[in-house]
Amino acid sequence: MQTYKRAADLPSLTLVGAGPGDPELLTLKAVKALQSAKVVLYDSLVHPDILQYASSKAIKRFIGERAGRLVYTQEDINNMVVRYAKTYGHVVHLKGGDPFVFGRGYEEMVFAESARLRTAVIPGLTSATALPALQKIPLTTDSHNEGFWVLTGNTIEEKVSNEVFHAARTNATAVILMGLKKLGEIVEIYKEAGKADLPAAVIINGSMSNECFVTGKVKNIKEKINCQCLHGPALIIIGEAVSYYAEKKQQSFSPDKTKPLTMTNYENTFSLQTHVDI
Amino acid sequence: MQTYKRAADLPSLTLVGAGPGDPELLTLKAVKALQSAKVVLYDSLVHPDILQYASSKAIKRFIGERAGRLVYTQEDINNMVVRYAKTYGHVVHLKGGDPFVFGRGYEEMVFAESARLRTAVIPGLTSATALPALQKIPLTTDSHNEGFWVLTGNTIEEKVSNEVFHAARTNATAVILMGLKKLGEIVEIYKEAGKADLPAAVIINGSMSNECFVTGKVKNIKEKINCQCLHGPALIIIGEAVSYYAEKKQQSFSPDKTKPLTMTNYENTFSLQTHVDI
Repeated sequence: MQTYKRAADLPSLTLVGAGPGDPELLTLKAVKALQSAKVVLYDSLVHPDILQYASSKAIKRFIGERAGRLVYTQEDINNMVVRYAKTYGHVVHLKGGDPFVFGRGYEEMVFAESARLRTAVIPGLTSATALPALQKIPLTTDSHNEGFWVLTGNTIEEKVSNEVFHAARTNATAVILMGLKKLGEIVEIYKEAGKADLPAAVIINGSMSNECFVTGKVKNIKEKINCQCLHGPALIIIGEAVSYYAEKKQQSFSPDKTKPLTMTNYENTFSLQTHVDI
Repeated sequence: MQTYKRAADLPSLTLVGAGPGDPELLTLKAVKALQSAKVVLYDSLVHPDILQYASSKAIKRFIGERAGRLVYTQEDINNMVVRYAKTYGHVVHLKGGDPFVFGRGYEEMVFAESARLRTAVIPGLTSATALPALQKIPLTTDSHNEGFWVLTGNTIEEKVSNEVFHAARTNATAVILMGLKKLGEIVEIYKEAGKADLPAAVIINGSMSNECFVTGKVKNIKEKINCQCLHGPALIIIGEAVSYYAEKKQQSFSPDKTKPLTMTNYENTFSLQTHVDI
C-alpha cells in the first residue's frame, strides 16, 4: 500500500507501550507500528519476543540498562531518535508498560517534535493496572472504594513522594511503582495514618515466568517478602481491595530464574492464576 | 492441540478487557482468549469489530444497554455466565476498558468462582491511561507531578466522590471517569481549592471516530464543551500535566456521527493526533 510506505519513510517517532512483561499483552496497534518501523529502539523491560513483529530488515537497538546501569541518558536517546528518523524514517521506541506513565515518553516526544518529527503514542498496558488484574486484585470495587492512586515510590530526589502521605489518608487503593527500596518508609507512613492492618501486596517481575507475588498487611508485608527476585520491577498495592485474594493466596514464586521468559499461551492464563479448585 | 481444546470445554470464565474503543487497542492475549471461546458476552462499549476474532461457531450475545437502558442486571449476567459455562465451556466476557477498573469484573469473578468455574482476567487498556496518551497528555512528567489519581465522578449513591476533594488538594493529575454530569460540581471543588486556573481536558468517545476532545482550564472547561457527542463515555483530566497540549490544541470533534466506527489503520494513528506541522 503506497500510503503505508510513505508513512514509514517520513521522519517520525512512535512511542509504543510494550506492556508489563508478558509479550502477549502487546496491542494489535503496537504490532502494526512495529511492522512499519525502519528502526526499533527498545528498553530493558521489553520482552525480546516482541521484536519478532518488526521487519527482519529493521535496525533493532537495545538502549536499556546493562548490568544494572544506564548506558544512555535521555538526552542521548533523544538525539538517537532524531538521527535515526531523519536517516531512515519511522522510528519505534518500545517502552515497558505505558510510555506516558513514569516513562519519560512525554519529554522524548517534545524533543522529537521540536526537531520536526511527526510523533504518535500507542498506549500500552501499564503494570499499575494490568498486574493487579492478572492477580485478580480489583483496583476498584463497588463496596470498597471510589478510585485508585498511582504513585512513584521514588522521586527524582530519591525520596518517598509526598503524595504517599495524602494517599494514606484516603480510601483510594494506592499502587506504588518503583517503591521497593522505600517499602520500609512507605509502611511507616501508613502506620502513622493508623493503617497498619490495611491489606497490601507486592508483585515483582509481574506477568513474567519469574514473577514473585506476596500478600499481607501493611504491618508485615515487608517481612513476608522472601523471594529471590528482589531486583526486578516491583509494584506495591495497598488498600482494602487487596483483601479478597490476600485472604486466599499464599506467597508465590517461580524459582526457575534461569529459564528464559517464554511466550505464554492461553493455558498459562489460567495456570498463572490461583483459583478455586474444581 | 489437545490441551487447548480441553481448556475451552471446561466451565470457565475469562474476563477480557477490550480497551477504550479502537479495536486495535486489543491485546494479543485477548485475541487468543476469543479464539478459544465457546460463548462471547459483550458490553455496550465494546467495538463490534472485536467479535471477528471469535470462532464463527461461538455464541455471541450482546448484554449491554439498549436505547440507553440496562437490559440485564449484574445478577442476571452472573447467572448467564454460569449457565453458559456449564453448558458450553469457555465463556469470554468482553468488557470495555479494563474489567477491574470500575467494571464490576471482580464481583462477577467472585460469583463465577463460587459456582466452581475456573476464572481468568486479561487486563485491557483502561481509558484512564490510554486516552490521555493517545492525545499526548502525559499523566506523569518528571517536572510536574509524582502520580495520578483515577476516580469515578459518580458514586453508587450518584454523588461526586469524596476522593475528588482530596485529589483537588494534591499535585497528582486527576483522571475522572463517568464524571461529565457532575462536571459543574467537580469544577466548584477545584475552585474552592484555589485551582481555577489549573489546565483541564475532556475526552468523549475517546479513540473512536466520533471522538470529542476539549481543553481549557478548570474555570472554563465546562463552557468550552460544545460537541454534539455529549452522550458517550467521558474522561475528565485535571492537572498541570495537561498544559503542554492544552496550549496548542483546539477543540476537536469528528462530526460524522452517523458513520460506523471503523478499524483504524496505522496511518490513522498519526491522523488521530494533532502534531506540529512539518
